[in-house]
Amino acid sequence: MSIRNGLSEPEPGDGPSDPVAGSLLDAAHDCIAAFGLRRLTLTDVARHAGVSRPTVYRRWRDINTLVADLLTREMRAALLTAAQQSGPADGPGGVRERLVRESSELLRALRGHPLLARILETEPEALVTYTFQRLGSSQRGALELIRPQITAGQADGTIRPGNPDELARMVMLLVQTTAQSWRLVDDVLPLDRLTGELRHLLDSYLRPVEA
Amino acid sequence: MSIRNGLSEPEPGDGPSDPVAGSLLDAAHDCIAAFGLRRLTLTDVARHAGVSRPTVYRRWRDINTLVADLLTREMRAALLTAAQQSGPADGPGGVRERLVRESSELLRALRGHPLLARILETEPEALVTYTFQRLGSSQRGALELIRPQITAGQADGTIRPGNPDELARMVMLLVQTTAQSWRLVDDVLPLDRLTGELRHLLDSYLRPVEA
Repeated sequence: MSIRNGLSEPEPGDGPSDPVAGSLLDAAHDCIAAFGLRRLTLTDVARHAGVSRPTVYRRWRDINTLVADLLTREMRAALLTAAQQSGPADGPGGVRERLVRESSELLRALRGHPLLARILETEPEALVTYTFQRLGSSQRGALELIRPQITAGQADGTIRPGNPDELARMVMLLVQTTAQSWRLVDDVLPLDRLTGELRHLLDSYLRPVEA
Repeated sequence: MSIRNGLSEPEPGDGPSDPVAGSLLDAAHDCIAAFGLRRLTLTDVARHAGVSRPTVYRRWRDINTLVADLLTREMRAALLTAAQQSGPADGPGGVRERLVRESSELLRALRGHPLLARILETEPEALVTYTFQRLGSSQRGALELIRPQITAGQADGTIRPGNPDELARMVMLLVQTTAQSWRLVDDVLPLDRLTGELRHLLDSYLRPVEA
């Protein structure tokens, strides 16, 4: 089973085959990394990318829509990298072990991501929707990546029986929480220790129950 | 070991022996449940409680401080109720089983709490600080309740070895996440199913690893 099930290969700039959109997202990324999100406008993005305002406004109706697309692109890239880095499912823990490894790679990637770090530090309000209210497209993308791995792990006997949608949702929630709420635990669980606890958490949660 | 270690009994109104403070918090609670948090002022609270504005301003310098105290009081009450409802640690799972039961009772109490439900629905921004930035006093209160149970479970052999502060922090984070982010999973894991998954999650996370 392909580890990329549900996620397409990133295209140049990862716009929907729109290289201009890709470079506008790059420009927005640079602006946020340098100046933060709070006062960013579509006009700033146009100026930084050296294009006209209509070139930006034709693609996004407001800055929030653009930032949502940027976050989706960055999350998707982090997910693909984590999937690639976590290798084959050929250890004794089979697919479960691989999914746990991938999840901890993703935690590290999200924690080291300059855009996310900046948002979390300066404008955490931007995360309210996707923490308390509803799933966004990058979370749905993550679920599309996790769910077939749950099914494959149930097939190879390394993940306990249960509704794959339920297990995938819990895995997503746990990775998200450790990536977003790390400041609540950092004094006792700095990144390396937190990653270790996430691994234990996911491994024991997914492992088949001993008879 | 007392299950109430670190948390004092609730006093009337749970102000620091200040019954007026207690009834002002009650008034604020009613205002928020009826009208939401967004436009609430100390003057509204004074009017609703039928006291003068200085009576309120003498105790809180702004509405945010009052709401923080109200949340602390409500969380503490929910913690105490969950602790009381989860019975003795005399099952085969000992203290671990009891802590898991208590955590799932707490999840139910938080989900059913009218004030929290209202805040989560209408003003989730109020939760940003205690989700992304730092622990608040009710979270520290929860840790003071959880930590001695971790130690007791390690003593009775039902909780795996490990730094009790680290394990307690993870337990707190997991209960908080399921209580706050339930809308992200509710379509596949409504409350009863989510409670079941939280139990499995905590039980398997805390259980000693088989040799």
